[in-house]
Amino acid sequence: MFEFDVAEYKERIKKTKESMSRENIEVLLVSDPANMNYLTGYDGWSFYVPQLLILAVDEEEPIWVGRTEDSRGAEITTWLKEENIKPYGEDYIMSSVKHPMSFVAGILREKGLADRAIGVEMDAYYFTAHCLIELKKSLPSTALTDASSLVNWVRVVKSEKEIGCMKKAARVLEKVMQVAIDSIEVGVRQCDAAANIYHAQISGTPEYGGGYVAVIPLLLAGERSKAPHLTWTNEKFKENEVVVLELAGCYNHYHCPLCRTVYLGDPPSELKGLAEKGAIGFDRILEFMKPGLTIEEVKESWEKGIAGNDFAKGHRMGYSIGIAYPPDWGEHTVSIRLGDKTVLEPNMTFHMPAAAWLEDFGIEISESVRITENGCEALASFPRKLFVK
Amino acid sequence: MFEFDVAEYKERIKKTKESMSRENIEVLLVSDPANMNYLTGYDGWSFYVPQLLILAVDEEEPIWVGRTEDSRGAEITTWLKEENIKPYGEDYIMSSVKHPMSFVAGILREKGLADRAIGVEMDAYYFTAHCLIELKKSLPSTALTDASSLVNWVRVVKSEKEIGCMKKAARVLEKVMQVAIDSIEVGVRQCDAAANIYHAQISGTPEYGGGYVAVIPLLLAGERSKAPHLTWTNEKFKENEVVVLELAGCYNHYHCPLCRTVYLGDPPSELKGLAEKGAIGFDRILEFMKPGLTIEEVKESWEKGIAGNDFAKGHRMGYSIGIAYPPDWGEHTVSIRLGDKTVLEPNMTFHMPAAAWLEDFGIEISESVRITENGCEALASFPRKLFVK
Repeated sequence: MFEFDVAEYKERIKKTKESMSRENIEVLLVSDPANMNYLTGYDGWSFYVPQLLILAVDEEEPIWVGRTEDSRGAEITTWLKEENIKPYGEDYIMSSVKHPMSFVAGILREKGLADRAIGVEMDAYYFTAHCLIELKKSLPSTALTDASSLVNWVRVVKSEKEIGCMKKAARVLEKVMQVAIDSIEVGVRQCDAAANIYHAQISGTPEYGGGYVAVIPLLLAGERSKAPHLTWTNEKFKENEVVVLELAGCYNHYHCPLCRTVYLGDPPSELKGLAEKGAIGFDRILEFMKPGLTIEEVKESWEKGIAGNDFAKGHRMGYSIGIAYPPDWGEHTVSIRLGDKTVLEPNMTFHMPAAAWLEDFGIEISESVRITENGCEALASFPRKLFVK
Repeated sequence: MFEFDVAEYKERIKKTKESMSRENIEVLLVSDPANMNYLTGYDGWSFYVPQLLILAVDEEEPIWVGRTEDSRGAEITTWLKEENIKPYGEDYIMSSVKHPMSFVAGILREKGLADRAIGVEMDAYYFTAHCLIELKKSLPSTALTDASSLVNWVRVVKSEKEIGCMKKAARVLEKVMQVAIDSIEVGVRQCDAAANIYHAQISGTPEYGGGYVAVIPLLLAGERSKAPHLTWTNEKFKENEVVVLELAGCYNHYHCPLCRTVYLGDPPSELKGLAEKGAIGFDRILEFMKPGLTIEEVKESWEKGIAGNDFAKGHRMGYSIGIAYPPDWGEHTVSIRLGDKTVLEPNMTFHMPAAAWLEDFGIEISESVRITENGCEALASFPRKLFVK
């Protein structure tokens, strides 16, 4: 049933507490759904109401706080003992009178934690400004510090079991990308191709299913290929149209994303040239990356390389990946750009998208990469080229 | 291309400004993706980075602020003039030095709006606590008030064109629910049924596509039927298992949700009895609802009715629906419960889920409802019964 044994979760808790101690944080409130999952296994589509973990440096297990009707889900999906699952009542939901953060404050007081140094993930998506205001109102004399990416940074180097999940996600992704390329044909509705893609993302492989992805299938045809985060439309694919794809496979919420570009017809020579340069650029950068280099050196190497002037010029060239929930599969830690001095270590994992935008269309190409003992490897095995149909 | 003409958007802006005036708000910062879509048409999966609209009472059009690579998407999807699309650079992304809210503050100053009474959607999902802190840092002497659901309340009564979208969403939903019931069979993997469901949600009907839903397919089998927000698993459906479904169809981001329950085998008499009571309960409440009643009266009528003791006892009995983006298809306005004095008006739309949880399993049933001139109508036409297979 559980992907990871309790010992792995306890190791994660231990590392998080070490990081808390370094930051002088005694109690951490964890509301990012990916971080909640990482520390306890909790997995539910319940992040649209306030929920969080309370992790104290001197308590063995975190406390899960959420809505009553989700507490059964916490019992089913986490390794926590029952007394550490603390549900708040329905009267706290969408109420102008009661707020879940006053319930959280009550637990902190009850456990003698309300006067400790409390860290809060102030930049987590579902921890709104209003949540912080309500928390402060309930704890007027407590110092709250921003601990937004503390757990995210603990997640940067993956365990062997996590790498196993990433590789399963890569197998799903390979299937998904092939379904996408097979589905894109002149005269087919974009929404029907997107439906096939999402079907493949969820059904996964015969051995294991995939899951819902943190970002919808990004399928951008024609002029939309220059607008990377639009949705597909209900229009049909046309002749001489470029179609940019940014898709992920996921397994147990671990994500492996990939970008590829399709052309319906005889591609302009400019596009063919760019595709070739991009592919060679990736060959070279994957030969270059290895433990001990800094992230900045990776970006510098790309910029100096064959594709550096055309792709990702002045942009982030990627970011760390792992567990993810909507709306983003980025881990919010390492950014592959100048100035990032993070040193590469084995079992770090990155998505490295490179886009070039011309007058009338865009092209995207990427790899998801694992740092190995001596170098790196592409997680997914998928031809690195322009797909012409 | 556009679902609504510019006149409809301008009417929405007018109503929003009237509401702002009543609340003494001169400038509104709108970051809820559904509200951004409602006012301008903007539609992109870009809400994982800060973005918002600036709407001033004395300016004709709102200003869109977002990431440079998303500004092309704003040009494509909104009715705004080009000079009102204000992109911030890539150096603001995931930066510890520059924050998009300082860019927003710069625009407010440039337009002479920085000292006005500014309302902020402080409880919008993607407007994090950190965003508010950064905004305050950039506007230290400006009074910021919480205007979280101001635009949401403008959305409560739908236009005829919006009702048209809701009805198209209902047609998609009917297809989706049938696909779900057809796909659930003993021996089939839950993930394969979920994949079929999502396929139907996106491909929609032959006349128009659906879209990505604000909540993943909730498909809960066996003991998970008591935990309403868990995900499907990779397990196979078993004999004598209850499967609870909460699914939506959507069209142009307008959502029509529905709950139904399936039993694989010969259902226990207790479950059959509950299903019958729930169905009759809905027959009665749909006969009851009409303009002029308060929301509270609807809830009271349900509680006194045949299913009131078994279903939704002490819980919200529903909420207003309309445009939605992940993670929630609720509009965050009307809640069908005691204490809500909102008066029903024609073209209000609600999802009314009712759940009952027994020792070993749960059952759910619901309708999405439109208030008409003299009564109400179920948006979707789908048998209101326990599906036995």
